[in-house]
Amino acid sequence: MPKYRLLTPGPTQVPEPALLAMARQLPHHRTAEFRALLAEVFDGLKYVLATRNDVVMLASSGTGAMEAAVVNLVPRGGKAIVLESGKFSERWREIAQRFGIEVVAHRVPWGEPFRPADVAKLLAEHPDTVAVYTTLMETSTGVGHDIEGIGRVVGPTKALLVVDGISGAGVMECRTDDWQVDVLAVGGQKALMVPPGLAFLAVSEAAWRQIEAISRPAFYFDLLAYRKALQKCDTPFTPATSLILALAENLRSIRQEGIEAIWARAERLGRATRAGMEALGLKLFAARPAAGMTAVCSPPGLDTDAFLKRLVARFGVKLAAGQGPLKGKIFRIAHMGIIDELEILGSIAAMELVLVEMRQVVKLGAGVAAASEVLAHARP
Amino acid sequence: MPKYRLLTPGPTQVPEPALLAMARQLPHHRTAEFRALLAEVFDGLKYVLATRNDVVMLASSGTGAMEAAVVNLVPRGGKAIVLESGKFSERWREIAQRFGIEVVAHRVPWGEPFRPADVAKLLAEHPDTVAVYTTLMETSTGVGHDIEGIGRVVGPTKALLVVDGISGAGVMECRTDDWQVDVLAVGGQKALMVPPGLAFLAVSEAAWRQIEAISRPAFYFDLLAYRKALQKCDTPFTPATSLILALAENLRSIRQEGIEAIWARAERLGRATRAGMEALGLKLFAARPAAGMTAVCSPPGLDTDAFLKRLVARFGVKLAAGQGPLKGKIFRIAHMGIIDELEILGSIAAMELVLVEMRQVVKLGAGVAAASEVLAHARP
Repeated sequence: MPKYRLLTPGPTQVPEPALLAMARQLPHHRTAEFRALLAEVFDGLKYVLATRNDVVMLASSGTGAMEAAVVNLVPRGGKAIVLESGKFSERWREIAQRFGIEVVAHRVPWGEPFRPADVAKLLAEHPDTVAVYTTLMETSTGVGHDIEGIGRVVGPTKALLVVDGISGAGVMECRTDDWQVDVLAVGGQKALMVPPGLAFLAVSEAAWRQIEAISRPAFYFDLLAYRKALQKCDTPFTPATSLILALAENLRSIRQEGIEAIWARAERLGRATRAGMEALGLKLFAARPAAGMTAVCSPPGLDTDAFLKRLVARFGVKLAAGQGPLKGKIFRIAHMGIIDELEILGSIAAMELVLVEMRQVVKLGAGVAAASEVLAHARP
Repeated sequence: MPKYRLLTPGPTQVPEPALLAMARQLPHHRTAEFRALLAEVFDGLKYVLATRNDVVMLASSGTGAMEAAVVNLVPRGGKAIVLESGKFSERWREIAQRFGIEVVAHRVPWGEPFRPADVAKLLAEHPDTVAVYTTLMETSTGVGHDIEGIGRVVGPTKALLVVDGISGAGVMECRTDDWQVDVLAVGGQKALMVPPGLAFLAVSEAAWRQIEAISRPAFYFDLLAYRKALQKCDTPFTPATSLILALAENLRSIRQEGIEAIWARAERLGRATRAGMEALGLKLFAARPAAGMTAVCSPPGLDTDAFLKRLVARFGVKLAAGQGPLKGKIFRIAHMGIIDELEILGSIAAMELVLVEMRQVVKLGAGVAAASEVLAHARP
């Protein structure tokens, strides 16, 4: 078996200090020592998310954070605008509808970005909107949405802006406060590089006021319980301690590199990856590509599933397949976390070899050369 | 700093193979290999829980599993009997009330067990009860409840029996199917010895019929989504992969020892611990002690908090304090998971030394001798 290399947009590779932290015996979570660690972690998360807002931590996958961001903000019968373009933005609608919220769904074709002007129009048509739900990096399509632009149109209205930054936050630019994001949902197993099971919400003062104003069908996801616990730097229910130990390690290394340097590194790797793919004659799926991942259209005649399997079998390179209607039509390469230049270059070379094996017309080395060209001229 | 020894009823100590499993790079969860691991884990869980029912796995703490066991079974306005005697059984009521369920609370003093005859009487008075919520091992009081007896009275009625086995299942006898338990909630960080963040529900056919019959204010905790995913040996949302790798290791060792042998070992350690405490003149709190832990009344004049702190500082022995109204009045010793004879004997000796330090009248060695006496005559 070749070495296994996760190049999927979550879970991402876990850095060695975090892996080793999880191999230690656990501390007890109701101790002064653990609360001190939690304080450090909350502080680190605020740094990564560019916010002074409270950050709450859930022991759940990202979907749990999404549910919390729905049931705590919009009461049954209340109105929410959902910007929909991909599997994960659809989930906002599914959750909202499950809880009896009136959803105004704004759909754009998968792969396209949302336009702030459209959002402004919708808000004018629906002045009773409680919250606008959107997505930073739509993991199913590879689109990075213009949250800054959307924030500019939602900000002046009464509506709250809620962003799924589960896979995007920490890898692509996201200035939570400056962009007027009221609630940002974040996953641990993406740019924060810990195994799945942790999720976070950065919550603005305006959002807290709304949370206080309504009642909610929630207990485990009742954000007021989390805020109360936060006063003592604690969690209302048993936290996922081992994942938090890992996160603390990663936040230290993130601070050391600097979050803006990390955003720039992902952007650079993304440009290199896209150049590599285009040099192989492959089309990019996302009209506005996210920094953290690249979605590539499968060329005509390629058995995508066999291609992905072969990449794992021969090179240990695990890419992500398309989801839902994109199954078999695209594949997805992550360039987030500790995935580095060498792995991206090597993986492009591996893709070239497998494409040739599968009788696609590809010039060996062309993808790597184009990617290297980008890296040569966009040095850190 | 002395070596740290967790003797708390969750989180418990994590065995070395599980720790090392978490130090490996993660697999991707949407692969045939990971589904095969999940199949092994589900199979192992059924073995531990003595059930042929479906077991679903949540990425959450135990409270998440409790919420799922409430919102999926009893509709708003439906009636539930809650057997209440301690912090965790109270939580059943709190969750049910949060979701607009009519709760018939049956309270017995903390430290006392529930009597099946009382439950039978309540069911006769409330024939429209949808579910009875109770607790296997009440972690806040150390009581092991008579689930077999309660199952015998709930079984013949239309009501479903739901048991919080979060800390008890896997350490004390729990025959889910034989005892007619419809839904059993289990935590990962207790007898299953993995870090916090995993919870499970064993769900009977009768419970599934009820789950299908009602709608629920749930998305992340919608059990129908989990059942659908189970068909493909999958999970509806990203599972907590690193914790599952650890769990797989632990389930292998549990199978090797045998679940009945584990129940017997805990029972034996429990008897030794209780004998040791009583030989020191300390009173036990639970009228019906659980196999997995011992709650001990603080002797008059002892500063319990200082006692617990000193045990950590000098011996690295971390016991649990009392919770809620029992704060400062009891302390709690776990004998579950990989806590063994030596650690229990050593910890009793440590308690003796600290009690003497704190000017309690204690005969050094008396507790250890009494505990050893039990172990000498109750050999595995």
